[in-house]
Order: sequence, then C-alpha cells, then structure tokens
Amino acid sequence: MKQRADLKFHHSGVSVPNLAASIAWYRDMLGFEVDQTMRIDAIPAEVAMLKRGPLRVELFEVKGAAALPERRRDPQTDPHTHGNKHVAFAVEDVDTIAAELTERGADIVFVGRMPFGTFVFIRDNAGNLVEFVQQPDLWAAGARA
Amino acid sequence: MKQRADLKFHHSGVSVPNLAASIAWYRDMLGFEVDQTMRIDAIPAEVAMLKRGPLRVELFEVKGAAALPERRRDPQTDPHTHGNKHVAFAVEDVDTIAAELTERGADIVFVGRMPFGTFVFIRDNAGNLVEFVQQPDLWAAGARA
Repeated sequence: MKQRADLKFHHSGVSVPNLAASIAWYRDMLGFEVDQTMRIDAIPAEVAMLKRGPLRVELFEVKGAAALPERRRDPQTDPHTHGNKHVAFAVEDVDTIAAELTERGADIVFVGRMPFGTFVFIRDNAGNLVEFVQQPDLWAAGARA
Repeated sequence: MKQRADLKFHHSGVSVPNLAASIAWYRDMLGFEVDQTMRIDAIPAEVAMLKRGPLRVELFEVKGAAALPERRRDPQTDPHTHGNKHVAFAVEDVDTIAAELTERGADIVFVGRMPFGTFVFIRDNAGNLVEFVQQPDLWAAGARA
C-alpha cells in the first residue's frame, strides 16, 4: 500500500434557507468572508464558499429544501440520528469566545466540559450547531498540533 | 467590539451505528488513530475522538439511534434538507487520493469539478459523506493558506 496522501481541513458544508442571511451571519459573528459564489446545477443550488484564514464554510441554498429537523438543533439530540453532525473549531479559551459571541448576539446553547477540554455550542442564524473547543495541549503545541 | 479570537479546525462529529467498525474504517481508510474514548451521559453516547496530525473526527454511538436518512448518502440530495452536511479535507491531488482510496476499497461516490477546484466524495463504512478537495492555490501557499 502506498504512503497516505497528506490531508488538511478544507471546509464544512451547510445547507441553509437563505444564502444572503447566512453569509451575513458567518461574516458578522465569526469573521468569514465570501471567497467565491457559484451555482451547482446538479443539485441545483446557489453556493457560497466562505473563508477565514485557512478555514472555509460552504453554504448551499436549495429552493424548496426541507427544514432542519428539530432534533438537529440540540447537541444532545442530534446524535440520535446517524450522520454527519457538526464542525468544531479550536479556540485558546472558551470563556473568551463565549463572551465574544454573546456580545455579538449569538444563540448560545451551552458550555460544557469533556475529557478533551471545555467547549461551547452555538447555533447559527438558521439553527445549525457550531462548536468551539478549548484543548490546552493543542493550543500550546502550535498551529499544527 | 473586541478583536476576534483566533480559530483553528478542531473536529467534525459523526453519529455512527457501530463505534468499533467506524474506528476501524477511519484508521484503515484514512489513517486516523483513537486519541481518546469517553462516555457522554447527557446524550447518552459512547464517543471516540480520532486524530490524524492536526485533524480530528469525533464518532458517537447512540443506542437505538435512527438510521441515516437515505438522501444523506448522496452529495446532490443531501443539501435538499437544511443542516450541517459534510466535512471536506484538502489534498494536493484528487486523482492520487481517489486512486489510494479505491485501492483500499472505499465507496467512491464521484469525482467532480468546481470553480474552486476538483473534488471527490466518498462514503464511510456507515454511508456518511466525506469530501476531498484539490485546490491548487491552497496547497501551493502552504499549511496556513
């Protein structure tokens, strides 16, 4: 077997009801800017690839798409259906990001503690979960840790 | 408004029917190793945090969880329901990763081309979509591009 190809994070994909409203939320709340917009005829969808440094979020707007299932709005009920669930970003300090996001008017779900660190879940403007994790050993070890 | 807190990618979370089987798949297919296992009583779930360099995948096994909705198995039908959809990893060359994953027996969905680059979607052992993106300008600019 050949050596494995190197992998980096590229993006997480989210289907949203209103592309413009979600572009505004990810810009104002998290500092993402539009890198590219495109139409994907095969879906069909209007798509925006957002970028913040090395991080990307891909937003899809599909006409007539079904609403976010209610149980997906809560980190504790979301895993009760199999599938891709959420993306988590690492932060140096959860209290700092929670305070920053609260000040910006974010919908904070809860702050929790796990063996791997402290975390906060928020919902984006459309109810999609986004997690932020404080893992001290990761941050201390630098960008590639 | 204060300066924004720095963000890095931490993990993507996936709910799976069989934790051991998914740990094996992410190890054998993508080279992720178990970093930590834990129980989250609030869900309740058995959880494994997998790690490959700076990348992480968090697997949840919830007893009695509902099956992955059929439309979530296809990148073109998945966005027809609002919600978090997939994670994408950047690779230097899509053909190389597609060949590597085919050799390892991956369930390849399709290879496609977009304004931002070439990509391939695969399904994990439980049918969850994983994307790999070749974006030449990103790779050339280094790890933080």
